[in-house]
Amino acid sequence: MRMYELIMKKRNGGALSKEEITDMINGYVDGTIPDYQMAAFLMAVYFRGMTEEETLAMTQAVAQSGDMVDLSAIEGVKVDKHSTGGVGDKTTLIVAPIVASCGVKVAKMSGRGLGHTGGTIDKLESIPGFQTSLSQEKFFETVNKAGLSVIGQTGNLTPGDKKLYALRDVTATVDSIPLIAVSIMSKKLAAGSDCILLDVKTGSGAFMKTVEDSIRLAEEMVTIGENAGRRTIALITDMDIPLGNNIGNSLEVIEAVETLQGNGPEDLTEVCVQLASNMLFMAGKGEMDACEEMARQAIQNGSALESLKTMVKAQGGDVSVIEDTDRFEKAVYRKEVLAPRSGYITHMDTEACGIASSLLGAGRATKEDAIDYTAGIILKKKTGDYVERGECIAELFTSDEKRFVAAEEKFDAAICIADEAPNEKPLIYARVTKDGVRH
Amino acid sequence: MRMYELIMKKRNGGALSKEEITDMINGYVDGTIPDYQMAAFLMAVYFRGMTEEETLAMTQAVAQSGDMVDLSAIEGVKVDKHSTGGVGDKTTLIVAPIVASCGVKVAKMSGRGLGHTGGTIDKLESIPGFQTSLSQEKFFETVNKAGLSVIGQTGNLTPGDKKLYALRDVTATVDSIPLIAVSIMSKKLAAGSDCILLDVKTGSGAFMKTVEDSIRLAEEMVTIGENAGRRTIALITDMDIPLGNNIGNSLEVIEAVETLQGNGPEDLTEVCVQLASNMLFMAGKGEMDACEEMARQAIQNGSALESLKTMVKAQGGDVSVIEDTDRFEKAVYRKEVLAPRSGYITHMDTEACGIASSLLGAGRATKEDAIDYTAGIILKKKTGDYVERGECIAELFTSDEKRFVAAEEKFDAAICIADEAPNEKPLIYARVTKDGVRH
Repeated sequence: MRMYELIMKKRNGGALSKEEITDMINGYVDGTIPDYQMAAFLMAVYFRGMTEEETLAMTQAVAQSGDMVDLSAIEGVKVDKHSTGGVGDKTTLIVAPIVASCGVKVAKMSGRGLGHTGGTIDKLESIPGFQTSLSQEKFFETVNKAGLSVIGQTGNLTPGDKKLYALRDVTATVDSIPLIAVSIMSKKLAAGSDCILLDVKTGSGAFMKTVEDSIRLAEEMVTIGENAGRRTIALITDMDIPLGNNIGNSLEVIEAVETLQGNGPEDLTEVCVQLASNMLFMAGKGEMDACEEMARQAIQNGSALESLKTMVKAQGGDVSVIEDTDRFEKAVYRKEVLAPRSGYITHMDTEACGIASSLLGAGRATKEDAIDYTAGIILKKKTGDYVERGECIAELFTSDEKRFVAAEEKFDAAICIADEAPNEKPLIYARVTKDGVRH
Repeated sequence: MRMYELIMKKRNGGALSKEEITDMINGYVDGTIPDYQMAAFLMAVYFRGMTEEETLAMTQAVAQSGDMVDLSAIEGVKVDKHSTGGVGDKTTLIVAPIVASCGVKVAKMSGRGLGHTGGTIDKLESIPGFQTSLSQEKFFETVNKAGLSVIGQTGNLTPGDKKLYALRDVTATVDSIPLIAVSIMSKKLAAGSDCILLDVKTGSGAFMKTVEDSIRLAEEMVTIGENAGRRTIALITDMDIPLGNNIGNSLEVIEAVETLQGNGPEDLTEVCVQLASNMLFMAGKGEMDACEEMARQAIQNGSALESLKTMVKAQGGDVSVIEDTDRFEKAVYRKEVLAPRSGYITHMDTEACGIASSLLGAGRATKEDAIDYTAGIILKKKTGDYVERGECIAELFTSDEKRFVAAEEKFDAAICIADEAPNEKPLIYARVTKDGVRH
């Protein structure tokens, strides 16, 4: 009867106590609370929301449902970074080396791509030999030596989140902001870093389509993080246009290397500098201005690129492809997408661009699918650019020529060309800290 | 994925098509849709409600999940009656004989008591020998001969309702007006009568505590009934005071007989005449005035009592206890409740009175409990009456003396006595037909 009363309380707009939330999550994870009661509770949360105290209690209970990673064997301040997912989002490959080269440790667990967004683990695995499954000792050793390490999720991390997410996924309760915040932050708390930088994407290629929702999610997550004793900052960054020009696994590693060489696209470079400087700021490296300068220096003097190479080597990867990106295996087939008319590109449906890349072989339809690391898209023009009829907008790459048909159709439909230039949009919409939102 | 989309549609405030609702109910009953998805859907309905079309489609799908009783073997118009449940509610025992004696057939399936409300089947079984399980042939034969028959639920009636109700009961989705309407009306549609009279109780002893909610429920049910091709009328009747003076199984049969003899309490008699005349009206027996006169005549000329006796005899019951109610077995123990002070009874918590009667042995805590048919309460004073300190308010009856303690404590707490007389409340708040609400 207890779970019944908790559902009733939430349904009627009440707030559960920390103890009630903890008992509920523990009962759900150990199977004494059935799926149907949790499903009713989650739908009530969709309509009624959760208080700050409830959200914190739920995040902590979910984090503690499995292993809590203890990073104390790694010296110094550890800073984590989380992106809510986007298209062409290779920022971890750039930001983590910048931060590490400035003396702040990044011990990061990342995920694989699913749906229209890529995953850092898949991108790293496009480097020949690169190992994403390390033992805990090897993981800590790599961070201590290289300043950073990025591996796949290991151990029994947040089984409660996996069980809750699987239920939300089939009961139409995924898109509840407090539940999204609980899911992300429970994993971050369990992963053990001292500071957490959240990159909340907004726009047509993001899960949050509006700036308002992105800010609400960021506020929830920052509040949880700070209340749980972790310094937490969120940036709301644009994902209405793919980030950078390259989409696809090895294509994104190549663009990350170019960016660390100082030759990256302006949008990608700028977002990475802002993410990195906020991580340095949280780690106590100085005021924001100083941290930003430090991040730019790490690119200019090549130290960030060195950090990336050290990690690649430590994790068994072939460093020669980083030193000369022409050594990456190339896709067998290449096809140009030509502008059907002259005009300004006014919009690119970024989710559709991500799906087009996935259809070329860069992503998976199901968890079991293999990935074509060479597949993807290089954008030659982006939103705001003027194109002449017949000019090349993008190059598509794949190892399976048959894949061009569906991918090209998807990509073509994603591009809008009109006579008037669109208004320019900011790259970074807002910065959310415990002190509030700064636009 | 289909059920996922239906949950999402409802959650976002949309309306499902008839086909979608039908597929959903069929899928739930056959087990292809799991409890957790239905639980999420039901909670979304709690917040979003359902349209007239959705409610009708769901009622029909639930009704058709099991047997649809075919009453065509019974001659003439068949009228059913449903009460939403109350304390001291013996109206079926009075109304059905009145209607039958006026030539309208009542082929009724009733339920057992659970919680604070009694059940007609339990009351009838307090008559020695009375059979509530009849074969379909015997049931039809009894109705054709006596004009009425009341039996327990038989066959595989609305298994979908049973499954849905069990789920709602553990997921805090019971008190949703459209879902209550679906549950009641699906059983009425399956039970096969041409016309349906709904007695929606309101007040402290009813499931609907406010007149507004009772009217909303009545409107939903009348709309469903009429849209399904059954003439349907609802009366909103008071259950803020127990109906009549007797609570408990044989005590209520005795009071029903007294009422059919023309010696019943005024409130009970009046409610029964109104219920009966609306049933006669739906069956085409004339204008409301004429039907009311017909119902009063059936009491005065003794024909209604004769109908009751014919049914009792046909169903194997001992008619001598109806002819002389002193022949009913008496409770072993009797105890008076005395007024603790002088003043007006301003309120009786009617649900608590029902629980007190149940604690004396008249009801069950679980479905498996046996019933003490002689147990119950006779009210000597009711809301609005003036009592002197030490005057008898009620008599408690039981076969198990130990039961007095808890029952008396419950009953005492239910009675409020104060200096000022309370405002008088109507017996019947409203009549709801397809043409609207008349207060």
